[in-house]
Amino acid sequence: MAAYSPPLRDMDFVLHDVLKIETSSTPGYAYLDRDFTAAILGEAGKIARDVLAPLNAVGDTQGCRLENGVVRTPDGFKAAFDTVREGGWMGLDCAEEFGGQGLPYVMNAATGEMQVASNMALNMYWGLTHGAYSAIHVHGSDEQKAKWLPKLVSGEWTGTMNLTEPHCGTDLGLLRTKAEPQDDESHLITGQKIFISAGEHDMAENIIHLVLAKIPGGPEGVKGISLFIVPKFLVNDDGSLGDRNDLSCGKLEEKMGIHGNATCVMNYDGAEGYLVGEAHKGLRAMFTMMNEARVGVGLQGLGQAAAAYQVAADYARDRLQGRAIGEAANPDGPADPLIVHPDVRRALMDQKSFVEGGRAFALWAATLIDAGHRSDDKEALGLVSLLTPVVKGFLTDKGFDCTVQAQQMLGGHGYIEEWGVSQFVRDARIAMIYEGANGVQALDLVGRKLGAEGGKPVMAFFDLVKTFIKENDGNEGLKADFLDPLKAASKDLQAAAMFFMQNGMKDPNAALAGSTDFLHLFGHVCLGYMWARIARAALEGSEEFHKAKLATGRYYMARQLPATKMHLARIESGAVPVMALAAEDF
Amino acid sequence: MAAYSPPLRDMDFVLHDVLKIETSSTPGYAYLDRDFTAAILGEAGKIARDVLAPLNAVGDTQGCRLENGVVRTPDGFKAAFDTVREGGWMGLDCAEEFGGQGLPYVMNAATGEMQVASNMALNMYWGLTHGAYSAIHVHGSDEQKAKWLPKLVSGEWTGTMNLTEPHCGTDLGLLRTKAEPQDDESHLITGQKIFISAGEHDMAENIIHLVLAKIPGGPEGVKGISLFIVPKFLVNDDGSLGDRNDLSCGKLEEKMGIHGNATCVMNYDGAEGYLVGEAHKGLRAMFTMMNEARVGVGLQGLGQAAAAYQVAADYARDRLQGRAIGEAANPDGPADPLIVHPDVRRALMDQKSFVEGGRAFALWAATLIDAGHRSDDKEALGLVSLLTPVVKGFLTDKGFDCTVQAQQMLGGHGYIEEWGVSQFVRDARIAMIYEGANGVQALDLVGRKLGAEGGKPVMAFFDLVKTFIKENDGNEGLKADFLDPLKAASKDLQAAAMFFMQNGMKDPNAALAGSTDFLHLFGHVCLGYMWARIARAALEGSEEFHKAKLATGRYYMARQLPATKMHLARIESGAVPVMALAAEDF
Repeated sequence: MAAYSPPLRDMDFVLHDVLKIETSSTPGYAYLDRDFTAAILGEAGKIARDVLAPLNAVGDTQGCRLENGVVRTPDGFKAAFDTVREGGWMGLDCAEEFGGQGLPYVMNAATGEMQVASNMALNMYWGLTHGAYSAIHVHGSDEQKAKWLPKLVSGEWTGTMNLTEPHCGTDLGLLRTKAEPQDDESHLITGQKIFISAGEHDMAENIIHLVLAKIPGGPEGVKGISLFIVPKFLVNDDGSLGDRNDLSCGKLEEKMGIHGNATCVMNYDGAEGYLVGEAHKGLRAMFTMMNEARVGVGLQGLGQAAAAYQVAADYARDRLQGRAIGEAANPDGPADPLIVHPDVRRALMDQKSFVEGGRAFALWAATLIDAGHRSDDKEALGLVSLLTPVVKGFLTDKGFDCTVQAQQMLGGHGYIEEWGVSQFVRDARIAMIYEGANGVQALDLVGRKLGAEGGKPVMAFFDLVKTFIKENDGNEGLKADFLDPLKAASKDLQAAAMFFMQNGMKDPNAALAGSTDFLHLFGHVCLGYMWARIARAALEGSEEFHKAKLATGRYYMARQLPATKMHLARIESGAVPVMALAAEDF
Repeated sequence: MAAYSPPLRDMDFVLHDVLKIETSSTPGYAYLDRDFTAAILGEAGKIARDVLAPLNAVGDTQGCRLENGVVRTPDGFKAAFDTVREGGWMGLDCAEEFGGQGLPYVMNAATGEMQVASNMALNMYWGLTHGAYSAIHVHGSDEQKAKWLPKLVSGEWTGTMNLTEPHCGTDLGLLRTKAEPQDDESHLITGQKIFISAGEHDMAENIIHLVLAKIPGGPEGVKGISLFIVPKFLVNDDGSLGDRNDLSCGKLEEKMGIHGNATCVMNYDGAEGYLVGEAHKGLRAMFTMMNEARVGVGLQGLGQAAAAYQVAADYARDRLQGRAIGEAANPDGPADPLIVHPDVRRALMDQKSFVEGGRAFALWAATLIDAGHRSDDKEALGLVSLLTPVVKGFLTDKGFDCTVQAQQMLGGHGYIEEWGVSQFVRDARIAMIYEGANGVQALDLVGRKLGAEGGKPVMAFFDLVKTFIKENDGNEGLKADFLDPLKAASKDLQAAAMFFMQNGMKDPNAALAGSTDFLHLFGHVCLGYMWARIARAALEGSEEFHKAKLATGRYYMARQLPATKMHLARIESGAVPVMALAAEDF
């Protein structure tokens, strides 16, 4: 299998020529000049290529083993984890006062894509730690921050998020895990959590579980959920480790992919836990870091697509099979490379135009998160809250599709495990499911985000697109190939939103029946918008790189954007065809 | 995991109310009345449900093992194979003179869907045997037929197809396996074949390999390929087994799915082989049974989708999560079942409308194959040759998508192996690749079938659709919901064909760049046509079954057919966006 090649040139172009990050007024962005980001990304790329990628297949083949309550991770995972930890990568965007590097989240997103692309299962161990860090950082007391954060930032300890129980995933109101208050203000946690990624492993000396549970006597449903810190080992006041807490990994799940990550059934048998934030407000606490977490999962979909695409493109250039129509490309060889065939090109262009457009989209969303958090820009925060389900849902749905297309490129060689593309497909599949299944993302988008703040964020999005089109109206290189299709697609999105407004009030199902189509329609408009911005930047360059950007963007506009009309037609068919059958007719 | 439920009612409806098979003039069809087909399908359904389905997960988990050159199949496979063999199912449509049941192929297609849905890996052992039977039956000498066919029909021996080599799959002109003529008219076969399904196993006493090889001195490329019978054990004149032939399984591939089927590297080291048909005409011999083989793979995509859909629908009815908008469906329970949610319905309707429309499409194609072979109906044969790449490509692409949607329904439970839906996804994936990857199907459709016989078959297809619309114009139940959308979709297909005609002559790439989109466009029109025919039949009934059919059909027309416009737009964007980049830009 070909080595992973970090997309450094592309990231440099997106960050500096398209998003122009160093001109942003967001605090911390002034430092992000080309040299600085090149140094960071170059180093992260090396680790991804040389340390993480070589262990990707190892993790898939070996998986994790549970032996007497201890989870053994695949050979080499601990050493690679230590390399990443020692380089300070795990705390890249964590607060400096707790030992982090204090960089903007956008740098975490860019380095994260490479880590995910090269080894998704291994990356998750510190990815989830970051979630635990954020929960405590935003909602914990000063004491809790001082006690728990430094070692989560350094990676000496890792973290987890414990939401799901056997009978409830999305509907957390049903959860049963109990938290009994004790005299010393701690709680005793009892219950079973499932699908806990990195719930137990052998790479860190302690694991800090963030657990949702109900304090008896609290309100019913989601309004009675509290958030607790539940460490694997209790921690003494001097920071040393104390007794083992009453929790354990009961089982590892056999999964379709991400075998290198331990997906645990966690049993809490009266484990000591510490309330984070207010009692009964745990769900809100868990959801405040949702934007980042979901953009992170969107990056997983993108990263797997990017890595799989590289293998497919290499294969298409190398594999000799059939002849080009017209002039042979390899007249002295027994056949031409696959890449001469139009349908092979079509498949590669689908992948390439998604990966590059999606990368720009994810990094743009990351800059909005930074603007929201670092300069308290409410408009940016509203916009990224709107876009987050699109980043998560669209990039993971389409990212998975791309891995399937990459696998298809290799024919039978893609189906056997030897070439590694099957693993990209199997690993990418989970990103459509966890951190809110994509149907739930669509529900969040249509049922909540679209009408948020009286529709201000969505109007702001339409304004952005409109303004861009207007500002560049005289740019002949953009007009027909980029602006016109973007305008048409954006009109379809507006028509869909209008349909929801007109029909959703009378019958909410009329809107919700179109939610997944709306998410995809929105995703296409976002990528169309990004491609138009990329094209504007590319028109200012004259290298082969810039020409290829323009050609790739034209492909996206001509071949992918027409999907918006199909999604609109489906949406406008309303709820009746969707809801017509009785449950027993299925 | 829920038991597999054979779709007997649906098959009965399609065969008798939609296709009205017993009124067909095709020889053999007069016997196929409702009672007769019910008896056959009921028995086949029982075997699928009670014998094959319970072993599906066993096969996936255990896989096959290669020990000292012998392949061990999973526990229970041999006993189940024997049950199918002893019931005469393997020779259902084989000629009576060689011990077969002599039934039309359509019955093989219907029973085959159930066998594939319940255990694809196990079904392949006799599915490939059928391919070997057909090759010898059509192209072998009388002596060869007498010697090899009876035991292939009875299932005492199994068969394989050996095409692919490490350096060549689609482009068979590159193959290197040699066949040296001997004095006794046999040949000695030397070379390596890969991806040989059921190449070695422990369920039959002999394995008859059909091998493509080159006789030295023959023409270059595909014109110099010959087809050989190469048995694992030589067979004496009295039919008893002789010496072991010089061939062996060198390796089993580790694959993404169909673990219960042995995918072998086969090494031929001067193995004795017998020429089938004329020297150098082997490719033609191999391709004459292509329609059946490809429809068979289309059924695999459909079957996996059908089985996965059953699990998803059961889960959606059982799993309590969230509340319906408006009135609660399960007010006394902690939550409503998933199936109340519009996006869950949308996903189930996508699957159901594909599975039922696809089933009718595949069975219709099977009746055309019968008409072609049994009454030498050239028109039917031309039509099914045109439709075969659509059946194969569309049913496997969309069938795979459906398994992914079914998996999504189960959330995290779909990603772990316990529920069995991951296996449907992993197994279904291969059907898009083998028997001609779907990109090759699209190439076959656009580059060969569309222009075949001066376009007669495609004109015949358009005529069928047009005539149906005209004949039913006064049917108010059909008009707006079925005929109008079918007409619009069919117009899109005609426009695409017209675009190819006008542009493909100047630049073949302009047509080929749209080949995959054309295949999908065609597939949608075929399913739209089938749904219109189903609806006409359903309007004559008044049971809940018929009402559900109409509602499901309306869904397909309203929500799936709008894809045709998107495919047309992509096609009409031509070759430029697809071919713009240099190979090194990827």
